[in-house]
Amino acid sequence: MFDKILIANRGEIALRVIRACREMGIPSVAVHSTADSDAMHVRMADETICIGPASGAESYLSIPAIISACEVTGATAIHPGYGFLSENQRFVQIVEDHDITFIGPSAEHISMMGDKITAKETAKELGIPCVPGSAGGVATLEEAKQIGADFGYPVIIKATAGGGGRGMKVATSEAEMERAFLTARSEAKAAFGNDEVYIEKYLQKPRHIEIQVFGDGQGGGVHLGERDCSLQRRHQKVFEEAPGPSITASERARIGKICADAIAQMGYRGAGTVEFLYEDGEFYFIEMNTRLQVEHPVTEAIFGVDLVREQIRVAAGEKLSFTQDDLKINGHAIEVRINAEKLPEFRPSPGTISHFHAPGGLGVRMDSALYDGYRIPPYYDSLIAKLIVHGRDRPEALARLNRALGELIVDGVDTTVPLFHALLQEKDIHTGEYNIHWLEKWLESGPLS
Amino acid sequence: MFDKILIANRGEIALRVIRACREMGIPSVAVHSTADSDAMHVRMADETICIGPASGAESYLSIPAIISACEVTGATAIHPGYGFLSENQRFVQIVEDHDITFIGPSAEHISMMGDKITAKETAKELGIPCVPGSAGGVATLEEAKQIGADFGYPVIIKATAGGGGRGMKVATSEAEMERAFLTARSEAKAAFGNDEVYIEKYLQKPRHIEIQVFGDGQGGGVHLGERDCSLQRRHQKVFEEAPGPSITASERARIGKICADAIAQMGYRGAGTVEFLYEDGEFYFIEMNTRLQVEHPVTEAIFGVDLVREQIRVAAGEKLSFTQDDLKINGHAIEVRINAEKLPEFRPSPGTISHFHAPGGLGVRMDSALYDGYRIPPYYDSLIAKLIVHGRDRPEALARLNRALGELIVDGVDTTVPLFHALLQEKDIHTGEYNIHWLEKWLESGPLS
Repeated sequence: MFDKILIANRGEIALRVIRACREMGIPSVAVHSTADSDAMHVRMADETICIGPASGAESYLSIPAIISACEVTGATAIHPGYGFLSENQRFVQIVEDHDITFIGPSAEHISMMGDKITAKETAKELGIPCVPGSAGGVATLEEAKQIGADFGYPVIIKATAGGGGRGMKVATSEAEMERAFLTARSEAKAAFGNDEVYIEKYLQKPRHIEIQVFGDGQGGGVHLGERDCSLQRRHQKVFEEAPGPSITASERARIGKICADAIAQMGYRGAGTVEFLYEDGEFYFIEMNTRLQVEHPVTEAIFGVDLVREQIRVAAGEKLSFTQDDLKINGHAIEVRINAEKLPEFRPSPGTISHFHAPGGLGVRMDSALYDGYRIPPYYDSLIAKLIVHGRDRPEALARLNRALGELIVDGVDTTVPLFHALLQEKDIHTGEYNIHWLEKWLESGPLS
Repeated sequence: MFDKILIANRGEIALRVIRACREMGIPSVAVHSTADSDAMHVRMADETICIGPASGAESYLSIPAIISACEVTGATAIHPGYGFLSENQRFVQIVEDHDITFIGPSAEHISMMGDKITAKETAKELGIPCVPGSAGGVATLEEAKQIGADFGYPVIIKATAGGGGRGMKVATSEAEMERAFLTARSEAKAAFGNDEVYIEKYLQKPRHIEIQVFGDGQGGGVHLGERDCSLQRRHQKVFEEAPGPSITASERARIGKICADAIAQMGYRGAGTVEFLYEDGEFYFIEMNTRLQVEHPVTEAIFGVDLVREQIRVAAGEKLSFTQDDLKINGHAIEVRINAEKLPEFRPSPGTISHFHAPGGLGVRMDSALYDGYRIPPYYDSLIAKLIVHGRDRPEALARLNRALGELIVDGVDTTVPLFHALLQEKDIHTGEYNIHWLEKWLESGPLS
């Protein structure tokens, strides 16, 4: 096992990893920017090292600073958390060149899945169902129109180098194609310095369903069911649950097996998530994330496993500690992401936490880096806490979420807690009848004003 | 279902019940003494009512005050928590006479189990194994020797009128019987004015194992396995776990079935605990508690059920929401009781909480009534928080306990947290090799000084 693990991240996910390290008896190193000197992850780690100024680019994204931090502290492995350098193939390569273990998949797999076109090709080869789409980049409007006619409208045009919604345009008819195609290209050029786009069939009311997978890098692979993360605002998930309210046991078994077999065949090592759109009983591959997801705790809740511990074990060359048969779903879990944002505009609301009180009791898990007096810096992501509830069934989980939100106190900054109180008033949330557009549409109706 | 539930208790258990009420959508009423006006259970309940001065006898133990509180608030049911009036047969009778539902068993069952001799007789009749003992008083030395030979040494001689250890003597062989028998009789005479003694088989290194049972009052009964609560100081449990590290699946099934059948036969309604001493594979009945136990969360963790919710459902006349077959053990859970006490003397340490920060993350549950600025009054029990951890297995639960204790901050008063840090250094705790004498003996060796 590793002598010491450096966590190349901040906030709640750095804490999450430190907790796993502590439970495994492995010393942890927190890195931090000057803006994070008083952060909870710095307070909790066994060792800390400042790696640069507030700017993410000069600290949490600085490969030389992080490699130096390993050398100074003697850390023999790096856990990247999510975001920052977690899916940076070059980082992984450099880490490995320095004889440090990257706790995650190989640079090759990260690279393969990081490029959306290669990812889709790989998925297809591995038998993962994909959205019908163009074979690579689409260079001309004529070609785009032909594809639109072939798939049937609506179709979506996406930047090959893209992500986060930029360079994405929907065309609902051939008449709309020209404008959509050209706008997507120019946005792609502006955002990513590359105007290549591709085209896919556009699903109208899909759900976002993602399959948690785990590979041991030695030909073993399992799946841990799905998460439904359809409730999104501007492609950011805000409310995630497992199991998915629309997914049957046989659907789960079928798509789960496809994903588990795929990662076994790839020789994939560690945690990964295969993301799908789901509509009318069919799954359509979107992308694979080669890291831990923000919403991993709902999967931990229903399967009773520690995914971070498992990541560390597998990175150290151990076999998976569970088989597919060991993994049985127990109840229902929901996570809500609490951001320091002012509603209804979701405007970032950094500031000082004058009072923090976590909810307690049965079936409540709080993953946060908050404490009384903590100053939330304005430089980073606005996620400040994740509240996860676990119940025997979905109604119990929803009731528990409502109860726990009522106990939570985060004073001093605005948060997205009122969003969840309002969501819990909605019938569709209780029946589970929502899709990836539901939240945006609902927000347009002004429930938070 | 009930229109409104009054909680005739305070502290963490009042909060526990309020949480269940909130999740069930039932309004809750908190009662409080003048010393508890700012208590967390008062802040969290839907309605509150002051029922008397600080003295427990004049508030939480005052039957007229509690009945009046029900009438004033319109509460149609009372949850008694543990302690206070929870096992007071007269209280239950009066509650029922006022057409209020007592959330717990019938007055008759409380009375039956409240008297130790009746309890033991009932247990015997129901097929629950008891410590072998003489049938009533033992008048002569010859009779005593015969019993010693029958049971096998060691045996213990106890004053029929006794209690608190006076008039109790152990004889480890027939040679010791004469002196032990005569000393016990003379001590009994001196202490209680009655020299009658009886004799029981003496267990040398027993564990305290208790079986959680649940009856629906309609002939249905299940068990939820055991808890090992052997780590006790002055008969107060401090560390409880489930499943018991020494109990096999077949032992669990055997004793569990005996207890479940017994409460079904009794027509018992609600939660109960059948307490045993356990030695060399045999269970010996001590007593039955006809209420929720402090340590119920470890059972909730491994079975994924909400015992308070179930109490409320059953009191409202519903059937149990689970069958014996539904109840499968999932992992391992440990609870530690955190008291406001100064070590090493365990001297009560009331005062103001200057800072409270609960541990978070995977597998951690905090049941406490603490908050920043809370003044712990000196009038009541010193239990201020229960930390419950749940892991895939016992080593994981212990590692998680260690990690969570490290995160917990309770500033302003002394607590028993250092006791648990010290316990986690002990090999016997990790191997699970302890009995009801272990903690006292270990404390005598001065580990906390």
